Amino acid sequence: MRVLDRGDQLRKELDAARAGGATVGLVPTMGALHEGHASLIRRSAAECDVTAVTVFVNPLQFSPAEDLDEYPADLAGDVELASACGAGVVFAPPVEEMYPGGTSVVTVHVAGPPGAGLEAVTRPGHFDGVTTVVAKLFNLAGPCRAYFGEKDAQQLAVVRRLVADLSFPVEVVSCPTVREPDGLALSSRNARLSPAERAAATVLHRALLTGSTAVTAGRCDPSYEPAHVAALMAAAVAAEPLATLDYAEAVDAATMEPLTALTGDVRLVVAARLGKVRLIDNLSVKA
Amino acid sequence: MRVLDRGDQLRKELDAARAGGATVGLVPTMGALHEGHASLIRRSAAECDVTAVTVFVNPLQFSPAEDLDEYPADLAGDVELASACGAGVVFAPPVEEMYPGGTSVVTVHVAGPPGAGLEAVTRPGHFDGVTTVVAKLFNLAGPCRAYFGEKDAQQLAVVRRLVADLSFPVEVVSCPTVREPDGLALSSRNARLSPAERAAATVLHRALLTGSTAVTAGRCDPSYEPAHVAALMAAAVAAEPLATLDYAEAVDAATMEPLTALTGDVRLVVAARLGKVRLIDNLSVKA
Repeated sequence: MRVLDRGDQLRKELDAARAGGATVGLVPTMGALHEGHASLIRRSAAECDVTAVTVFVNPLQFSPAEDLDEYPADLAGDVELASACGAGVVFAPPVEEMYPGGTSVVTVHVAGPPGAGLEAVTRPGHFDGVTTVVAKLFNLAGPCRAYFGEKDAQQLAVVRRLVADLSFPVEVVSCPTVREPDGLALSSRNARLSPAERAAATVLHRALLTGSTAVTAGRCDPSYEPAHVAALMAAAVAAEPLATLDYAEAVDAATMEPLTALTGDVRLVVAARLGKVRLIDNLSVKA
Repeated sequence: MRVLDRGDQLRKELDAARAGGATVGLVPTMGALHEGHASLIRRSAAECDVTAVTVFVNPLQFSPAEDLDEYPADLAGDVELASACGAGVVFAPPVEEMYPGGTSVVTVHVAGPPGAGLEAVTRPGHFDGVTTVVAKLFNLAGPCRAYFGEKDAQQLAVVRRLVADLSFPVEVVSCPTVREPDGLALSSRNARLSPAERAAATVLHRALLTGSTAVTAGRCDPSYEPAHVAALMAAAVAAEPLATLDYAEAVDAATMEPLTALTGDVRLVVAARLGKVRLIDNLSVKA
């Protein structure tokens, strides 16, 4: 296991691996690794000869009002977990290494769907920050398979669009959301929930199951439209006193735009606040 | 000589070359190749094992009011010249190959210097278009040396910034401006000048020489300040009845920002219209 903090070291390490015939897997993370990340790293380690895990809390994807300073950090624990899951490299650069002078004059910009709506409404500039750092990590890592969790469904769609539009030599691989036994999707932010909020946080998954049932029911009942499914999910969240709904929608999985009819691959998405912690979750359903 | 029109063909060709131990040189152009481009291609062919010339008139870097439709095109002539200069590959994709559906949701954005001021004032969005297409070409070409002309000095500074900020595995090589015997910098747009405009167009170079002389004189005379040099260049352009000045400045070569003092590497820049044709030129001077 090598722990690197300079971009040129990462490039050199992975270029050398490819020169020796190895395939490279990349798992970009913001650290505070949990079992969700572990599933990405294990899958990469199973499919690629060398797996590089990046640990970088990217300031560009946080707005001033957000929780950048409170984002959990545990590099020693991250290195241990990454190693145990089969990673060969952890790249954990300081901010100054990624953005000399603290900023990037050149950034990547997402002008529309799938980067519009949903998260982009609450977090303006968020996906520009994501695509900028991911583009830079892709360039440092070189040709690879890159592993992203379905938990961040809109981010996944945006990264797929980034790769397609700018022709990065990267194959994006998505991995299923890992959940607690009670259905709560794993997230580094879960650690900041109070016990009461933690108990209430299952409402996101419950709302998605309500929506999923409705989509399935909609196969027989033409009155079940996307807006109806969205309203059922919103009502499920509203029923939980500790949760405040941000959005609940039935969207197209590729464009993340609200569906006008329940056909094909439906992605149900929900976002809510539990106290100061904002959580998101989603579920894929065949209509 | 291979002529390719699909991005995956270019990637495959250059990946195979690198796998065989070859180095790759990339010469991005908008076609209508002239002796200026030829100097880039020859230099790449001298320094790299395989040289790929890209020919693509990038609609993203033209505003609706600009001369996209009038931009000259001569693919057969371009292929002949590229081949004669030692290129191994010409990549000439249709717009639909570069921007399926005619657009790119994900683009590259230049938020400040060196992408602000000068060309960016007259051509809003121009450098976003340039960096978007160059990023895509870099990703298709893979690790390489990329050759750009000093004639487009601000573009060169922007591309250097693109590579640095997003960590592209590319070494940017700049090549001196090639001029007609009377000093006019070669440009594909020169072909659209009337004979009278063509004669008058030497005013850009003459203005730069005036500025250069003033910078040199400034070594002995503290009253020679950047604004004074700029005014002398502007006056030189104004003295030519067929030319309309856009800008004349003494700027920092890396940031393209107006200098406050004549020290170090001074880049003199000028832009003017001759009839419907807008021309730019620049000169580097040691203060």
